[in-house]
Amino acid sequence: MPPGEFELIARWFTRQSVRSDVLLGVGDDAALLAPPPGQVLVAAADTLVAGRHFLPGTPAACIGHQALAVNLSDMAAMGAEPAWALLSLSMPQADPEWLDGFAQGLHALADAHDVALVGGDTVSGPLVITVCLLGFVPSGEALRRTGARVGDLLYVSGTPGLAGAGLELLRSGIESFDSTDDCVRRFLHAEPRVTLGRRLRSLASAAMDVSDGLLGDARKLAAASGVGLRIELERLPLAPALLARWPRDRCESFVLHGGDDYELLFTLPVANAGRVAELAQATGCELHCIGEIVAGEGVSCTRGGRVVAVPGTGFDHFAG
Amino acid sequence: MPPGEFELIARWFTRQSVRSDVLLGVGDDAALLAPPPGQVLVAAADTLVAGRHFLPGTPAACIGHQALAVNLSDMAAMGAEPAWALLSLSMPQADPEWLDGFAQGLHALADAHDVALVGGDTVSGPLVITVCLLGFVPSGEALRRTGARVGDLLYVSGTPGLAGAGLELLRSGIESFDSTDDCVRRFLHAEPRVTLGRRLRSLASAAMDVSDGLLGDARKLAAASGVGLRIELERLPLAPALLARWPRDRCESFVLHGGDDYELLFTLPVANAGRVAELAQATGCELHCIGEIVAGEGVSCTRGGRVVAVPGTGFDHFAG
Repeated sequence: MPPGEFELIARWFTRQSVRSDVLLGVGDDAALLAPPPGQVLVAAADTLVAGRHFLPGTPAACIGHQALAVNLSDMAAMGAEPAWALLSLSMPQADPEWLDGFAQGLHALADAHDVALVGGDTVSGPLVITVCLLGFVPSGEALRRTGARVGDLLYVSGTPGLAGAGLELLRSGIESFDSTDDCVRRFLHAEPRVTLGRRLRSLASAAMDVSDGLLGDARKLAAASGVGLRIELERLPLAPALLARWPRDRCESFVLHGGDDYELLFTLPVANAGRVAELAQATGCELHCIGEIVAGEGVSCTRGGRVVAVPGTGFDHFAG
Repeated sequence: MPPGEFELIARWFTRQSVRSDVLLGVGDDAALLAPPPGQVLVAAADTLVAGRHFLPGTPAACIGHQALAVNLSDMAAMGAEPAWALLSLSMPQADPEWLDGFAQGLHALADAHDVALVGGDTVSGPLVITVCLLGFVPSGEALRRTGARVGDLLYVSGTPGLAGAGLELLRSGIESFDSTDDCVRRFLHAEPRVTLGRRLRSLASAAMDVSDGLLGDARKLAAASGVGLRIELERLPLAPALLARWPRDRCESFVLHGGDDYELLFTLPVANAGRVAELAQATGCELHCIGEIVAGEGVSCTRGGRVVAVPGTGFDHFAG
């Protein structure tokens, strides 16, 4: 007999919290939490839908990881320290094997970031997972999308495009879910840049996470800050795992349009550019200057100093 | 052409907040919020699935209302003051007419409780709605399920059973969604007992909301407090709208087993029983003593002082 709702919560989603700021976790009508004094609360909620955000057959542990990772990436983009998560899990049936995997993936990433699961909901329905993640940032230090200024430099962390390429390799059947290919690994195991985000608090003028494609997300940053962005295409970091499989222009397309990167796109005043090498070393994360902030609006791309047309925008869930 | 994801958020879910503690609302990677000093943060997340939590054809405004109401009820059960909501909305398509209704229902209830919508997610997928609601309670004053003591009195607010009866009237086609029947109204427009919950802080020894049926929820309260509950069946409040349609034993069954009441079940030390009439008057809410706390475990029901067997437990989403 499959486990009931209350056994399910007790068995897979109730753990002794190691955080002393969790006054009351899973099991009552709501969680009771003690925000640290002098800090601002940061709150995000992201949803994964089966067949939209993950492929049929995706290992449950990867889904559990991803459900939290997408929210950790939002915390990273704000420069916040994540703390507490609420999980809403709608699923067709309570399959113990699937739940073992899902909980393992979720809890492992939560542990790595000292996040406590404090509440949520489990219901029967289509497989749809929402995590609401709460964290803190010292008052006045949050990173926003609105602070980019003309003359600032534009950076991206890591090597975007790998995840989008990994999705294509899985979709086309070229690679399987247990592949050790760098692209597939990155797609299935996003590594949200939480440490980098925290370190950027005092350095960056604006930041956001890249989840819907670098170019489309850059347009959002430009719009939020009321500036233009100029991306120099020859400065885009092209990962060896991309170049090993595809021609250069295809690699560039993955970098500009691929989704699910969960890297950080940020702007730095020129005066802070000298701190980047040290920051990359401290966070173990490549940081690439890919352009600059200019007067105007939107994003323009250049190659060899000349503006070139680049089609496509970011992913829109409800685009016609 | 249907609206895109970003137009959708801008048009239906971005409103100027009237709360000065919202430092940054919808539109960045996460919301920035200022919890009041000296208060504990209260967090809950509840999910509605089409066909499970609401019937096919339910007016969108009722779904928007319900999505927030179920979470407000959790705040009420903790004695908390609600403040900020995050909405995760998965829906098959962005239908402007449906969104008009949904947003109207959601925002009207949010306004009534001074709740600001500060973030969330919109994705395409099956109709599944999660609201994460955050609120506050003064440190040490939250109501929990664990505080009931032997000798305390057991109370329920309002007239439970109406919503379950309303669901049956709709399901059977006896009444339609625009019916003015009290049962149907209560099912479609839950009135979470937020004011009552706040007033109970200093009076009640334990509290929870009744959402899965009074009897099953009473069993959870008993288990959490490590006590037994004795319910005197003749003290159950039977609403006129129930008695007008059904025989007395059927009405009792709606009260004990019907879901979606969103009333409060709470326990009072006998010394506080004299405050109940004043509390009912102040909150405009009937309060009925239906039993007491006894040594032991579980819930027993009596009629004329004799224990009688009552079948059935609360609703379990994954019961076999």
